[in-house]
Amino acid sequence: HFLLHSDFEAVRQKGLVIESVNGDFVLSEVHAHADTRTMPPVDGVFVALKTTQNHRLPDLLKPLLGPQTAVITLQNGLDVETEMASWLGDRPLLGGLCFICSNKVGPGHIRHLEYGKIGLGQYAPDHQPAGISDVLKRLADDLEQAGILVEITPDLRLTRWRKLVWNIPFNGLSVVLNAMTDEIMDNSDALALVEELMAETIAACEGEMRGLSPDQTRRLPVDLIEQMIEHTLEMTPYRTSMKIDYDTGRSLELEAIFGNPIRAAKAAAVDVPRIEMLYQQLKFLNSQ
Amino acid sequence: HFLLHSDFEAVRQKGLVIESVNGDFVLSEVHAHADTRTMPPVDGVFVALKTTQNHRLPDLLKPLLGPQTAVITLQNGLDVETEMASWLGDRPLLGGLCFICSNKVGPGHIRHLEYGKIGLGQYAPDHQPAGISDVLKRLADDLEQAGILVEITPDLRLTRWRKLVWNIPFNGLSVVLNAMTDEIMDNSDALALVEELMAETIAACEGEMRGLSPDQTRRLPVDLIEQMIEHTLEMTPYRTSMKIDYDTGRSLELEAIFGNPIRAAKAAAVDVPRIEMLYQQLKFLNSQ
Repeated sequence: HFLLHSDFEAVRQKGLVIESVNGDFVLSEVHAHADTRTMPPVDGVFVALKTTQNHRLPDLLKPLLGPQTAVITLQNGLDVETEMASWLGDRPLLGGLCFICSNKVGPGHIRHLEYGKIGLGQYAPDHQPAGISDVLKRLADDLEQAGILVEITPDLRLTRWRKLVWNIPFNGLSVVLNAMTDEIMDNSDALALVEELMAETIAACEGEMRGLSPDQTRRLPVDLIEQMIEHTLEMTPYRTSMKIDYDTGRSLELEAIFGNPIRAAKAAAVDVPRIEMLYQQLKFLNSQ
Repeated sequence: HFLLHSDFEAVRQKGLVIESVNGDFVLSEVHAHADTRTMPPVDGVFVALKTTQNHRLPDLLKPLLGPQTAVITLQNGLDVETEMASWLGDRPLLGGLCFICSNKVGPGHIRHLEYGKIGLGQYAPDHQPAGISDVLKRLADDLEQAGILVEITPDLRLTRWRKLVWNIPFNGLSVVLNAMTDEIMDNSDALALVEELMAETIAACEGEMRGLSPDQTRRLPVDLIEQMIEHTLEMTPYRTSMKIDYDTGRSLELEAIFGNPIRAAKAAAVDVPRIEMLYQQLKFLNSQ
């Protein structure tokens, strides 16, 4: 069952059209819905809404939730689960991080450029690691059966921070500098700034983790910046999702990707002046 | 004698056309030159070149310099006099800071929107204050005779820093955020960033001055940020000179306004992460 908004009519009539590096295909028969109230309760809900619309989730999810329905939010950023957890009760809540370059190029028409892994972990309160639960393993199995590469993580919070190390500089700077990933990588000043923003994000994460695990077992790889730079150099030039939102006049996901990490840094007494400045610049641009 | 480049033909034929808040006028007969080699040696040279072209000054000024010719550079930023001083010998070197909102709107056609004061001081090596010399007083008298409001300063370096407190945030952010002064002032995030950039500039200035004058007599006003914010709120909405350069595809004056102040901050061991980030962003945009 797919919930669709502006694409509903196109998908109802023609299905979902996927152009992919892994091979093109069409899902010609799709359970398309314009409203969750036409859907039955389900085993699991994948949330692919923009975080700027999360206030709509309680209403949207209500018809879908059985007593054991799992909710998997595929959203970027920090603290996106906190509010959902408050009204989901005992239902399992998971976070998925999509390592994929894909854009919508027309109604019901997706272009998948590169990658396709989902990092999957279970949510636990107070930024604690939830470990690897049965429901996490079962969900990962189902996704792998469907041909999706999954990497499970016992520590969703740490994995979210890790993805932010890339998203904070590249999502933010792509909008402020009006640039593709390769234009940023090809300029020594922009690249130096990327590395400084990455270092601030890592410092914020490590500051938080020091407070949570005095034994310091929850850590990011020491060579994470080098890894990410190398990885981005090899990447097909890419317009980030935040840049696409900006170019198409949609609200930017600023709280999940910037505001919440900045507040976490402040709580851990870590200074992140460059991330704050980027956030201020993006809030200005978002308001114009 | 006016040295003109792309405006030479227009000014030779029609003179200089000035629209001004203080009254419009035309200078119909102008000593227009396309080359300084057609000019005689003069008593004083006003340098209004972009600082990005300062490497051309030795050649440009050569025909104009008598043994006592004064050179007055009307350029913004820090350290714009250092190189000139090295080849001017004993000739007086002064710096003028133009507090004026005016744009060129066509060939030989200037629109003067607001203000018109020149802050004028004499250059001395090693960032020392030169005091108020006779040549400075005479030049200020001449300018006042010509109807120009002049404020002389015994401490050109400090006055340059003071102007940077405005120029660094507003010139820089107007380009990066694609904004007029009033759009920046009207947005609480952009305004907070302006104040933080001002505070970093003041900290860099005070750091340098502490090293130069242990008696701490060389200081910026304690309420400078409030003064500047209030002043900018009252200002007619304005497109900064750096934004005009950017919009018309000219090189940005990044070293005088950003690079040199950042190097001065580093020499004084003052951290200016936001100014550095703005500089990196501007260097990226300037290179595109």
